Amino acid sequence: MPRAYNFSAGPAVLPEEVLRIAQQELCDFQQTGSSVMEISHRGDVFGAFFNETQNNLRVLMNIPNNYRILFLQGGARLQFAMVALNLAKPGDTVDYVNSGHWSQLAMDTAKQHAVVNEVVSNRLEKYTAIPEEKKWLRSAKAAYLHFTTNETIHGVQFPVMPTIKNDVPLVCDMSSDFISRPIDVNQFGIIYAGAQKNVGIAGLTIVIVREDLLASIKRSDIPKMLQYATYADTDSMYNTPPTFAIYMAGLVFCWIKKQGGIAAIAKRNEEKANWLYRVIDDSDGFYSAPVKAPFRSRMNVVFRLANEKLNELFLETAQAHHLMYLKGHPVLGGMRASIYNAMPMDGVKALGEFMQAFAKTHLSH
Amino acid sequence: MPRAYNFSAGPAVLPEEVLRIAQQELCDFQQTGSSVMEISHRGDVFGAFFNETQNNLRVLMNIPNNYRILFLQGGARLQFAMVALNLAKPGDTVDYVNSGHWSQLAMDTAKQHAVVNEVVSNRLEKYTAIPEEKKWLRSAKAAYLHFTTNETIHGVQFPVMPTIKNDVPLVCDMSSDFISRPIDVNQFGIIYAGAQKNVGIAGLTIVIVREDLLASIKRSDIPKMLQYATYADTDSMYNTPPTFAIYMAGLVFCWIKKQGGIAAIAKRNEEKANWLYRVIDDSDGFYSAPVKAPFRSRMNVVFRLANEKLNELFLETAQAHHLMYLKGHPVLGGMRASIYNAMPMDGVKALGEFMQAFAKTHLSH
Repeated sequence: MPRAYNFSAGPAVLPEEVLRIAQQELCDFQQTGSSVMEISHRGDVFGAFFNETQNNLRVLMNIPNNYRILFLQGGARLQFAMVALNLAKPGDTVDYVNSGHWSQLAMDTAKQHAVVNEVVSNRLEKYTAIPEEKKWLRSAKAAYLHFTTNETIHGVQFPVMPTIKNDVPLVCDMSSDFISRPIDVNQFGIIYAGAQKNVGIAGLTIVIVREDLLASIKRSDIPKMLQYATYADTDSMYNTPPTFAIYMAGLVFCWIKKQGGIAAIAKRNEEKANWLYRVIDDSDGFYSAPVKAPFRSRMNVVFRLANEKLNELFLETAQAHHLMYLKGHPVLGGMRASIYNAMPMDGVKALGEFMQAFAKTHLSH
Repeated sequence: MPRAYNFSAGPAVLPEEVLRIAQQELCDFQQTGSSVMEISHRGDVFGAFFNETQNNLRVLMNIPNNYRILFLQGGARLQFAMVALNLAKPGDTVDYVNSGHWSQLAMDTAKQHAVVNEVVSNRLEKYTAIPEEKKWLRSAKAAYLHFTTNETIHGVQFPVMPTIKNDVPLVCDMSSDFISRPIDVNQFGIIYAGAQKNVGIAGLTIVIVREDLLASIKRSDIPKMLQYATYADTDSMYNTPPTFAIYMAGLVFCWIKKQGGIAAIAKRNEEKANWLYRVIDDSDGFYSAPVKAPFRSRMNVVFRLANEKLNELFLETAQAHHLMYLKGHPVLGGMRASIYNAMPMDGVKALGEFMQAFAKTHLSH
């Protein structure tokens, strides 16, 4: 089959060049006579690749030396619990910004382990914006403030990061816009991200943690596998890490370097998103984007057809044009085009042109 | 490079045929125009593959309908904690058989969450056998009995499974001999196995759990991501599962079917292990296997050179013959040849012949 344009929210599109490299060397990695899947995580060959991968990410994101990069399993979902377990003692208050489905779930998970203060919620406005900071009700003393830079389902993205107050660490789920735009890592206590959107494949979670937070809490009731210190102390090799997922991340980081780094990627992401939102806004109401302009995600473009009866036809016709996985998440309905780093501009243009043609055909009837 | 014979303990050798299939379809899975790494775990294409993979394992292992098959992350190491958290209430006693490095670690982890009774230990005899059951001191009332069918480091394997007593569930770490020989699943409460030895690649753990155990304990303090019920209730899709690792497992299960199933694989494993142990036993003391014959692992053949000064030369010369990763685990030293399902008889013969030639050369000096 010709290569499809894959708008899946995750697992998501990978750079075609990365897939070709993985394919080419799948049976023989660096002339070892073995696949990268088959070699020991503690051997020299994988060790060198792993170090290079870590270093590439550090350079790409300009991660300061007082931050550790950890490679974990379990997805962002496990981080929802680990953040609370590692940073809050029982009875501690933790602040959560509720800007969509995933921040709500992160907050619900934290309730099991700490006292949660919902700083602000846009639930009643259906998560179509992020309320301005002056409306937030922060705790006097929180163990951390948690937020979700980009809501994959609702298509809401923080245009700028929250302000740090009283040295409360910012803890951030960056799963769906990690390495998609430059950020200042110094502003964060912890950044975590599932890999299956911008980094690589499902089964790997990257955690960037400020070193002083590793030592802050020692709770003997937390399983060692859920303690950040376990991974920091062993360079993420307490047990066998997901070596192939790390390998894919490594290839993706090299690809980003070749694209000119994260600033260059961010510029393209901006162009891609603008292109699609323009098609929606210029459609005379055939399509609409619910999220208010300043908060529209550059990663997940959420939109609806005014005539919802056309939804199925829209999806089927798109699929016939190799434009795949455009159906919105069930909790929201409608459509969603996920246009992560690896989605080429050509894919976005193909989708935009298809949407225009589809609107033209069905407006006239 | 020509394909190496890879004796790594894990991540370990995969069937060459499986690697070729993965390579061939890496960029286009089932004519979707996308890689299997890129498609949604909730879509039809992955869903069908996932169901087939589960069914194949159920048929291969003859898993009864009152057992659930779960696909998790975190390795056997996370299971060390999950077993105790899910099956024991605080204060409950749990029984552990200590037959080597990994059962000791499983036991140490459980101590954090339950009262551990070490039923028997062979530590003082350096884990060279499994003490007979009549010497075991089981608790009057244990939440479960945990054992490790095969010790990857010490090369000790249970020739027959422990007896069930007082309906205490048998819980078993089968990471390094899973699907390597027929077993009666009915004898077990829980079987768990990291995938990176016989199943596929690192980053996937398979858990087979008897349904009545899912409901037995509800501890509100356990993170949902660590509750077996979470995965059972969602068919392992509570969050994004490690799709590519599941795909590789699926290919491996198909390959085992083509080999004639687990009984046929077991027969070959027996032949492979016997071949190597014979080379060791017939070496006039040049090589020795520390483990007593009835308990010698069919998966991890542990041996030493009488003259340890030759260790480095042995490893270097082996490597020059494409016989890789033969160095023993640091806690034990010496040599180890892991000969999982995917290691062909030709690889074992090549190793055996190399060992004989090496012994001949260095005995005569």
